[in-house]
Amino acid sequence: MAQKPSIPQGTRDFLPEVMIRRERIFDTIRQVFRKYGYAPIETPAMEKLSVLTGKYGEEGDKLIFKILNNGDFLRKAKDLDDSQKLSFQICDRALRYDLTVPFARFVVMNRNELNFPFKRYQIQPVWRGDRPGKGRYREFYQCDADVVGSDSLLFEAEYICMFDEVLSNLGLPGFSVLLNNRKILGGYAEIAGQPDKLTDICTAIDKLDKIGEEGVRKDLAKRGIGDPEADRLFELIRFEGTNEEKLDFLEKAFENSLEGLEGVREIREVFRYLNQFELNRATVTLDLPLARGLDYYTGTIFEVKAHDVSIGSICGGGRYSDLTGVFGLKDMPGVGISFGADRIYDAMAELGLFEEAQHTTTKVMLANFGGDTITPSLQALAALRKAGVAAELYPDTSKMRKQFSYANNKGIPYLLLIGAQEVESGVYQLKNMQTGEQVALPFDEILSKLKLGN
Amino acid sequence: MAQKPSIPQGTRDFLPEVMIRRERIFDTIRQVFRKYGYAPIETPAMEKLSVLTGKYGEEGDKLIFKILNNGDFLRKAKDLDDSQKLSFQICDRALRYDLTVPFARFVVMNRNELNFPFKRYQIQPVWRGDRPGKGRYREFYQCDADVVGSDSLLFEAEYICMFDEVLSNLGLPGFSVLLNNRKILGGYAEIAGQPDKLTDICTAIDKLDKIGEEGVRKDLAKRGIGDPEADRLFELIRFEGTNEEKLDFLEKAFENSLEGLEGVREIREVFRYLNQFELNRATVTLDLPLARGLDYYTGTIFEVKAHDVSIGSICGGGRYSDLTGVFGLKDMPGVGISFGADRIYDAMAELGLFEEAQHTTTKVMLANFGGDTITPSLQALAALRKAGVAAELYPDTSKMRKQFSYANNKGIPYLLLIGAQEVESGVYQLKNMQTGEQVALPFDEILSKLKLGN
Repeated sequence: MAQKPSIPQGTRDFLPEVMIRRERIFDTIRQVFRKYGYAPIETPAMEKLSVLTGKYGEEGDKLIFKILNNGDFLRKAKDLDDSQKLSFQICDRALRYDLTVPFARFVVMNRNELNFPFKRYQIQPVWRGDRPGKGRYREFYQCDADVVGSDSLLFEAEYICMFDEVLSNLGLPGFSVLLNNRKILGGYAEIAGQPDKLTDICTAIDKLDKIGEEGVRKDLAKRGIGDPEADRLFELIRFEGTNEEKLDFLEKAFENSLEGLEGVREIREVFRYLNQFELNRATVTLDLPLARGLDYYTGTIFEVKAHDVSIGSICGGGRYSDLTGVFGLKDMPGVGISFGADRIYDAMAELGLFEEAQHTTTKVMLANFGGDTITPSLQALAALRKAGVAAELYPDTSKMRKQFSYANNKGIPYLLLIGAQEVESGVYQLKNMQTGEQVALPFDEILSKLKLGN
Repeated sequence: MAQKPSIPQGTRDFLPEVMIRRERIFDTIRQVFRKYGYAPIETPAMEKLSVLTGKYGEEGDKLIFKILNNGDFLRKAKDLDDSQKLSFQICDRALRYDLTVPFARFVVMNRNELNFPFKRYQIQPVWRGDRPGKGRYREFYQCDADVVGSDSLLFEAEYICMFDEVLSNLGLPGFSVLLNNRKILGGYAEIAGQPDKLTDICTAIDKLDKIGEEGVRKDLAKRGIGDPEADRLFELIRFEGTNEEKLDFLEKAFENSLEGLEGVREIREVFRYLNQFELNRATVTLDLPLARGLDYYTGTIFEVKAHDVSIGSICGGGRYSDLTGVFGLKDMPGVGISFGADRIYDAMAELGLFEEAQHTTTKVMLANFGGDTITPSLQALAALRKAGVAAELYPDTSKMRKQFSYANNKGIPYLLLIGAQEVESGVYQLKNMQTGEQVALPFDEILSKLKLGN
């Protein structure tokens, strides 16, 4: 009996119309990465389980997809009554959960072949066993650029340019690059008299957008940070003004926090670099409550939000002082960013930035009239392709109506008609499927016409 | 204590120099697929285990990587003493093993949204638990094009053109497209008086290259096909001559095999189409012993071999009359091909077709002289990128010697020097890192020079 097939929850098939739009996003990102001197790498989909575990927190560890060992995997199994323990005895490998940990592993293993500072980009899928939901998938692409082996804040300024260039090129009318620095957050903690609770403060503030000030205050209280300290904290992060005014304000507030002052100095330097570059559509804002969830950031942190859409952040990133220590390679600082291709896609769709659906990249379809028209049709087909024009011949002599509707449904922009009469006259008919306009032209003129705009 | 990281056996990290070469191969294939009217799709890395099992034979089934269910996977486990049985109770998903079965599943699930004949291409990795060896990996890319919903033999001729165009564009000096038809193999079986043993005969002949005629005869004997029948078979497949002579020979030999005659007719039609196209470097040969291992082929079969290399076939493909029956959708014939990107890479490497290793796609590096040179350097950097030139500024003011060697090690073709003197004179120094030649030019001339060849 035939199976009724389905796909795993949280995964997707991509049909041509979606693929063509997605490829535009990936190509734009790739082009900008390259223009800024980043070189491509790829790592395997599966990593040793030991490389991944313990890197994403307890919750993250549970969401890693483990791969069952081949063959008689029970040989090494002991804890047959404990899923958690048993999984480590019957699985040596797992699917990557992000691109950062595999990149750290890559840098350590290949360090003798890399030129530092090493600038790489990586565009590959990752897998997470999250509960699927709107905009949340179990397989999705990450598009990361990182540089390791350098402290230079030039990279921070360049990453802002890269956000700007990619998103402007994709047609987003407006978006904000939000910027902060973990040392400024360290300053908050010091000023609030809680220098040891940086992580708690970051985790709590990170939720401000979602749960509001009251929620954050409750969360802080649970973490042992009372109202007077929270007051001081909110006084700092609620300050409003231009970027310059915020920096001046913080500089005064941090007179007793060396770390906070260092954060201010770094942000000033990023802006100094940035002033030499011209941005297209990005607004750059020092966002004082910006915290970012991830543990390993130690300097600048980034987040990008598109204007006028319901989608949260579409890009992120930050600086870390130690990427590879966990794998035994010390003193490897760096900074990196990530474009969320799925989020960008959703934002573009919501803003109506995609043109009409294209189900193919074919530019012209030759109708098939059969008989003696086949030879000149095949010759025209070959000539078009030789000139770089994506072309196809309808594969059999179905009724013209059916051939028309095939071209129409696929959204092929031109239809070329080479019937018996056209073969005799040497003048072919070219129909513009969008406007309905039809012109009779010698083939070489048709060829020139179609070559333009390729 | 720090971990010493490693990657799973049979998988690979791709460093920039290899990635840049691989991307050239993928881009060339993708470009040709599009030019012939194929549209991109993607399917998830993980499929339901039930979609994959039973499709690749007993041996294949063992090589499928299964994904352990998340959470308390033991809940549904019964056979805790039988790895084989247990694996189906604790794994609902698995990694795709090829692109053909997922494509069949895709066609069935999305049939109402597709325009038939549906022409798709798909370039994605697949995973197999094979024992790793030279040229055999556990993760590798397949690059497939298929058309479903058409019997037209035009596609066979076009696929030969696509093999020709991709491999010629990649610079392979010579390669053979070998061609046969499963119906011709059916003819052999009929003529040998063993019409029911088509699969046995295909499987045995498929090994001719490896085990020679004696080996094939022994294998046939084991399958109940004796010497007289084997004699008749070898008489057919050993015939030598031009493609035309082979077809004439078979036509006579098959006077009592309707199936064999149909195979001859089909190959003649493929050649008739093909004669209208001009090939670059391909030699097309009707290869009478060509059988191909896969079960589901029913018509034309293809294989491509590069000349003068130790690597076996680098591409393959064939026609099938029923792709999707197993998933409940009948009458879906089609034909498809696959480019073996890893094999093509190895062939190109063996033939010395790759240029000197490139570790980046950056075209020019600006040396960093610090101080007052930073502003004009950043302006030059921005102008270069705006003009589409991949450029980077060395991120700090290290010694010139170190900056030079960084550019040199990465294989960056040009170095731009904007020191204090250059800023004052407005004339910058451009060094060609390959020739060592250094010229002094105003920046706009440098910009024009670097823009060329982008």
